[in-house]
Amino acid sequence: MEINPEEHSKKDLYKLLIGSVVPRPIAWVSTISQDGVYNLAPYSFFNAVVGKPPTVVFCPGMRTEFTGEKDTYDNVVATGEFIVNFVNEDLAEAMNATSAIVPPEVDEFQRAGVTPVMGKTVNVPYVKESPIHFECKLHEIVTIGEPPTGGHLVIGTVTHMYFDDAVYQDSGYIDIEAYRPIGRLAGRSYTYVRDIFDMERP
Amino acid sequence: MEINPEEHSKKDLYKLLIGSVVPRPIAWVSTISQDGVYNLAPYSFFNAVVGKPPTVVFCPGMRTEFTGEKDTYDNVVATGEFIVNFVNEDLAEAMNATSAIVPPEVDEFQRAGVTPVMGKTVNVPYVKESPIHFECKLHEIVTIGEPPTGGHLVIGTVTHMYFDDAVYQDSGYIDIEAYRPIGRLAGRSYTYVRDIFDMERP
Repeated sequence: MEINPEEHSKKDLYKLLIGSVVPRPIAWVSTISQDGVYNLAPYSFFNAVVGKPPTVVFCPGMRTEFTGEKDTYDNVVATGEFIVNFVNEDLAEAMNATSAIVPPEVDEFQRAGVTPVMGKTVNVPYVKESPIHFECKLHEIVTIGEPPTGGHLVIGTVTHMYFDDAVYQDSGYIDIEAYRPIGRLAGRSYTYVRDIFDMERP
Repeated sequence: MEINPEEHSKKDLYKLLIGSVVPRPIAWVSTISQDGVYNLAPYSFFNAVVGKPPTVVFCPGMRTEFTGEKDTYDNVVATGEFIVNFVNEDLAEAMNATSAIVPPEVDEFQRAGVTPVMGKTVNVPYVKESPIHFECKLHEIVTIGEPPTGGHLVIGTVTHMYFDDAVYQDSGYIDIEAYRPIGRLAGRSYTYVRDIFDMERP
């Protein structure tokens, strides 16, 4: 099957992208609005990109359901700060609860039943139950495409990292079996990360 | 464990990033040099970011082993074109063979034992054995950090998509069980994507 993207809708292309680019890591991004409302939302158009300065990117799509942008995007633009919380198997349902589109005045920590604790280097709450979180300051936003189909590539510099003692090994490695992360696939699907294999680098 | 990134080396931070941001999708990126040499290399600092125009990003680190940049980066800068080939379980060993650092004159298709076929919208060969590939034109490069620890965020617009009939379903969905992708973890580790669960969106 050959596809010329120019002949297809955003919905069609999105389905093909999320089915092809798998498995995707999940950033459960917390932000705070100018009015002080806590926001929490999952993004799988997300990755680390640079080691030093440690840098991550995630990409909120432009909103099509309502006028205006996603709350996460608005909050990052307003405050220049966000936290990436990482999701393990135990937090999957709570993370999923925050994928609903709700009005900006809804506290999504409450909605998800998780505990907000204020960060050390940013004025944003993190998810206390997450085994790992990265506090981030906005480096740059690259806007791609036009409303209503484009997105905003949010580039953030990691200013503080937290690791639960259960997942951090003294050698500076993360214990994947203690961590038990999940990955995002297409549609409603996720993958466990339990069936692991090694390959020696040549 | 709390980490202030400013007090740690690139090597330490990189280990923590690749252990935390998991599982990562793999872009097996093919390019061609100005001299016509075929290059092929895997990147897991990679993701889709926007549905329309369909957009992907990957991030070659700045080279520390030698002077100069990675061949993939040099080729993208010179030609403005690249192809993202996707890796299934059958191609894991061939992909791993192209993660070695070799001189720019080495044809990595030959090294990996895969077949180059010229793209339709870019003058770059794709991996015939890959079940999916995306032809891409350079949109923008955002350079982050300074040599030798920084990286280049390469943003590409997808100009053509290919799906093997075995993985493409008529409804426009990708069949994950036919596809059998793999995901990147830390160190030498990869995950299969076989142990899948669903969650209804709220």
